[in-house]
Amino acid sequence: MSEPITIVGASGALGFALAVRLGRAGVPVMLGSRDAERAAETERRALELVPGGQFSSAENAEAAAANELVFLSVPFRNQSETLTNLKGVLREGQLVVDATVPLAAAVSGKATRMLGVWQGSAAQQAQEMVPAGVRVVSALHTVGAPTLGDLDHELDEDVLVAGDKRADKQRVAAVIDRIEGLRCVDVGRLEMARICESLTALLISTNVRHKTHAGIKITGLPADLWPPLKPKG
Amino acid sequence: MSEPITIVGASGALGFALAVRLGRAGVPVMLGSRDAERAAETERRALELVPGGQFSSAENAEAAAANELVFLSVPFRNQSETLTNLKGVLREGQLVVDATVPLAAAVSGKATRMLGVWQGSAAQQAQEMVPAGVRVVSALHTVGAPTLGDLDHELDEDVLVAGDKRADKQRVAAVIDRIEGLRCVDVGRLEMARICESLTALLISTNVRHKTHAGIKITGLPADLWPPLKPKG
Repeated sequence: MSEPITIVGASGALGFALAVRLGRAGVPVMLGSRDAERAAETERRALELVPGGQFSSAENAEAAAANELVFLSVPFRNQSETLTNLKGVLREGQLVVDATVPLAAAVSGKATRMLGVWQGSAAQQAQEMVPAGVRVVSALHTVGAPTLGDLDHELDEDVLVAGDKRADKQRVAAVIDRIEGLRCVDVGRLEMARICESLTALLISTNVRHKTHAGIKITGLPADLWPPLKPKG
Repeated sequence: MSEPITIVGASGALGFALAVRLGRAGVPVMLGSRDAERAAETERRALELVPGGQFSSAENAEAAAANELVFLSVPFRNQSETLTNLKGVLREGQLVVDATVPLAAAVSGKATRMLGVWQGSAAQQAQEMVPAGVRVVSALHTVGAPTLGDLDHELDEDVLVAGDKRADKQRVAAVIDRIEGLRCVDVGRLEMARICESLTALLISTNVRHKTHAGIKITGLPADLWPPLKPKG
């Protein structure tokens, strides 16, 4: 049994795709959207695709408060505003999984170019904005919404996970790895998020050239990527 | 039959690994090094590993002049100096394949962190420094020297190739794809090099966590990545 999760921005393409994949994998998913009505409509759409899924829905702030593990899947142009709105509800011990990509498209630039974020990455900006005791993990930047959202598409790719605590990443991997064909890889500290985020731009550029929806796999890894953590002490 | 190539910096780990792999694949390789004696010694080492290889050697500038296709494999801290030294010998029509990575290690920083290069990437710096009419393609940043250099290691990974002309990238791919287990992928214009270069840092970070030599594969690509170019006009 997986722990229940929340997706802030579940009516967006990636958020919705993640919701239905996780729902199908047996993860209870709370779908958050900017208003409760939109969230409820998204829940209905998710249930249509995954009739047995354990979905619930609420406005983003209420949704974010509902679970310890909160996926943040909003356009970069809305990330700061969204996190400001969540400040009152996020609390110590929660984990935010940031999937934001600071593409230049946010300011009418190209989707193959990145914006420079002063903190280094959108994930580090998120870490700066969440209340004390809330930690941020960066993930999901190389997974495309079209293939993730197409439940008939057989996935076979990796999810790069960056964060400062191994236990946090392990917790995120325990949820995402339930999706068949996805494999979480620990790529290091949260500061590596700037590289992971830029891979979205690289894959968009590659997609244009090869008319596909590309993903990434890391080669040369051992079979067991997430051995149980040794208790400290 | 492949066109002959030059490797500037062939006595370095990646340059040498590339030399022996290409040599074994039947590519005539001119090995360049800072002085001719070092180059000759590198040639002897290459011949020991690949007795049938078509190797030759010379000091970097002489080596760079010898072939139309020149791989540049030097540490970032030497890239600018090396290109300054080659200014007199590089000529219109030549293609430089830049494998430089601006890791912070160049200035005693971490190998998981990048330096900001004003031009955007080491490859774009190279493009700015070469004589008019010489074009630069960026490649090989996700291929690790230890696995490339170990001829018993079975490779199975991609080489990300960035450049402004499709024909240039195709020419580079025609050489690199001769190495069994490597597949060149066109990831877009030369400006994408900044992302490809940063993948070295990401893989080093991943290697530390998983005690391996990781590489990258792009998923979702068509079988034929380099269909013949249509003649223009």
